[in-house]
Amino acid sequence: MNVIELIRKKRDGNSFTKDEIKFLISSYTKNKIPDYQFSSLLMAVFLKGMNDAETSYLTEAMLYSGKVINLDFLKGNKVDKHSTGGVGDKTSLILAPIAAAAGIYVPMISGRGLGHTGGTLDKLESIPGFKTDLTLTEYKSVLKKCGAVLIGQTKDIAPADKLIYSLRDVTGTVESIPLISASIMSKKLAEGIDGLVLDVKTGSGAFMKEESDALKLAKSLISTAKSFDKKVIAFITDMNQPLGSYIGNWLEVLESIQVLKGEAKGNLLELSKTLSGAMIFLGGKASSLVEGIEISQNMIDNGKAFEKFLEIVEHQKGDIKYIEHPEKYPKAKIVERIYSDKEGYVAAINNFEIGMAALELGAGRLTKEDKIDPKAGIIFNVKIGDFVKKGDLLSEVHSSSKIKIEKAKEKIYSSIGLVPTLVKKTKLIKEIIF
Amino acid sequence: MNVIELIRKKRDGNSFTKDEIKFLISSYTKNKIPDYQFSSLLMAVFLKGMNDAETSYLTEAMLYSGKVINLDFLKGNKVDKHSTGGVGDKTSLILAPIAAAAGIYVPMISGRGLGHTGGTLDKLESIPGFKTDLTLTEYKSVLKKCGAVLIGQTKDIAPADKLIYSLRDVTGTVESIPLISASIMSKKLAEGIDGLVLDVKTGSGAFMKEESDALKLAKSLISTAKSFDKKVIAFITDMNQPLGSYIGNWLEVLESIQVLKGEAKGNLLELSKTLSGAMIFLGGKASSLVEGIEISQNMIDNGKAFEKFLEIVEHQKGDIKYIEHPEKYPKAKIVERIYSDKEGYVAAINNFEIGMAALELGAGRLTKEDKIDPKAGIIFNVKIGDFVKKGDLLSEVHSSSKIKIEKAKEKIYSSIGLVPTLVKKTKLIKEIIF
Repeated sequence: MNVIELIRKKRDGNSFTKDEIKFLISSYTKNKIPDYQFSSLLMAVFLKGMNDAETSYLTEAMLYSGKVINLDFLKGNKVDKHSTGGVGDKTSLILAPIAAAAGIYVPMISGRGLGHTGGTLDKLESIPGFKTDLTLTEYKSVLKKCGAVLIGQTKDIAPADKLIYSLRDVTGTVESIPLISASIMSKKLAEGIDGLVLDVKTGSGAFMKEESDALKLAKSLISTAKSFDKKVIAFITDMNQPLGSYIGNWLEVLESIQVLKGEAKGNLLELSKTLSGAMIFLGGKASSLVEGIEISQNMIDNGKAFEKFLEIVEHQKGDIKYIEHPEKYPKAKIVERIYSDKEGYVAAINNFEIGMAALELGAGRLTKEDKIDPKAGIIFNVKIGDFVKKGDLLSEVHSSSKIKIEKAKEKIYSSIGLVPTLVKKTKLIKEIIF
Repeated sequence: MNVIELIRKKRDGNSFTKDEIKFLISSYTKNKIPDYQFSSLLMAVFLKGMNDAETSYLTEAMLYSGKVINLDFLKGNKVDKHSTGGVGDKTSLILAPIAAAAGIYVPMISGRGLGHTGGTLDKLESIPGFKTDLTLTEYKSVLKKCGAVLIGQTKDIAPADKLIYSLRDVTGTVESIPLISASIMSKKLAEGIDGLVLDVKTGSGAFMKEESDALKLAKSLISTAKSFDKKVIAFITDMNQPLGSYIGNWLEVLESIQVLKGEAKGNLLELSKTLSGAMIFLGGKASSLVEGIEISQNMIDNGKAFEKFLEIVEHQKGDIKYIEHPEKYPKAKIVERIYSDKEGYVAAINNFEIGMAALELGAGRLTKEDKIDPKAGIIFNVKIGDFVKKGDLLSEVHSSSKIKIEKAKEKIYSSIGLVPTLVKKTKLIKEIIF
């Protein structure tokens, strides 16, 4: 096969065969196709698209560029969740223990935060001692013992994805549905799962600003998952405001503890229960999504979810003292409160800017080399539809630097749009697809 | 300026500003943009296009990446011709002496053949001693003395074009109208010309198979030329059959001599007179295209065109003995004739295959490294619309290898389509645009 001919084929709007995609991915991974040809191909794919079959072939080729974990030694069903990311999205920390408490195996391989969104690994690592770089043997062992494990991507998992993503990142070819879809699915399928719950975010704090794009991505992910005979369900959920109130790494662990202990209400609890409910349903421990959600609530009410969280943290070498007594966790050097200087209904929140404010406080990273301050972040007290009076608490900012606090305060102020007339609350779950 | 942002800008269908294009070309030429980013950009340009202003900015940026020759020391007008190339297209060798004989300066910088089309330089170099790699000083001196000069592209001329073309060649981004247009025009404008005649080919032996594409390219070239205040006229001409009958390097010199001496008729004579007529008209030595064509015929009839050709060859160190006595030129080792084994009207000629047959005989090169046999080629005796009887001579093939001859013969046989009913002759000049 000739690379230039294949570039021309896609460029002219034709579809690739399975063998062609296999050839392209395997040759690129083996360094037999130079970057300048592969990036030209990526741009052609970006602009001409790929159909469901091509996306599935691409996923398969990327998946088998590395190791596929075999979890057949576990008798129960293995179900994971993937979220496309957002501001304050800490549901992984909540639903893994809930689903595991309900008898589902949750083999979760997560990523780090970049840009305005946080990453599950960074949040977990804010717990002193918590290890996310387990070996494959440790991964299997913790999963067997606890029913859940949360680690970072290893070198063995879909190496083609890593290579291709690095190139996409610098060639303007990131936001392509088939490429995103194959990237997500190749990594998730490598975990050895039977089922996958997808949380595709849409809104100002999401990568997919438009609901129509989120829907397209969800459909592509579902089609790909099904082509691998996986059980799958996707939720299109709102990311026009933070999920929960806490943004920042330790702060999000803290809020997760609150939810797991039944001390929190609101959109975070609702989404966590829904997603874990879906996992329980896909894993065969509930006969419907509704029953799965009920079981999730029970796991919170009977304390099993929180117990499971403690168990996971302990098995991954985290210091459970801080989970049992979060008040012992060191506070950020500076904590400042922001109060409203006017009144009105919250009509809109620039959620991207809230994410960027948290990043600037030290909670995130702009480049892969940036260091994270686990204590930094925002407690964001308002939601769309709230009525805010002059002097009401808008948020609390945590950081080690006065300058960062000032910058973030400005961002937060300007991100909240108040209007004099009543505003409808935002619908959290916009669509369920399977 | 940020390269990734610029790639995204074009990818999303937006237009570049002059400064953005300047930045991109100058950075790439200075090796400050890696190939993998530039190729992604090229694919975005390929698929999203460029408007006339962008094409003009691109041409300018590529033009000024190198030297622009100043010919102000010459009092008359300098006019060149550019052809997009085809099979048997040796018009440069004919019209340069005609136009120069009529008082026009013809500063011609040409290329080599690649693939199924021949190159002016290769044809000239089949004349023993002929030098195409003149220095700039020699170029100016020959031009001043003879009124015409024919050389190859030097390193100083539009180096950005060379770099970009090499990348396009291996990334599936060759056939893009704005990129082709800027590539052609940046090199032609560097010659220091006042006017340019364009011969845009269309048909089975041309790069632009479709007349609509040829028309688009012609319009883009005209718009670019005008944005640089150059006089310009474009012809869309037929390339569904060879131009003239001789294909191959020395064979084409031979046919050029025949035309210049007034010994040839047919499409080659007609096109040569038209193009040189247009050059004479653009150069102000005729008040109309028709008058320019008449002057061209006069230059052939009064012997001045042929004399001028001898003068050019002599000044470029070619051995004029072979121009005066072409019969002294060594023959190819093997010359075979192909006769028709059926009868009918010639309905179609696969001109691309004829070009490839000539290449295989040794007249062309598939890669830049291939060596050319100046004596190899085809004398192709039929034209579309001709009636061919069984036993009629179809063509004569010249090569040094029996195997090559056999392969070429097969190609030639299968390239000629005969039908029992009358077929219309092909229209040579399909459109004139200015």
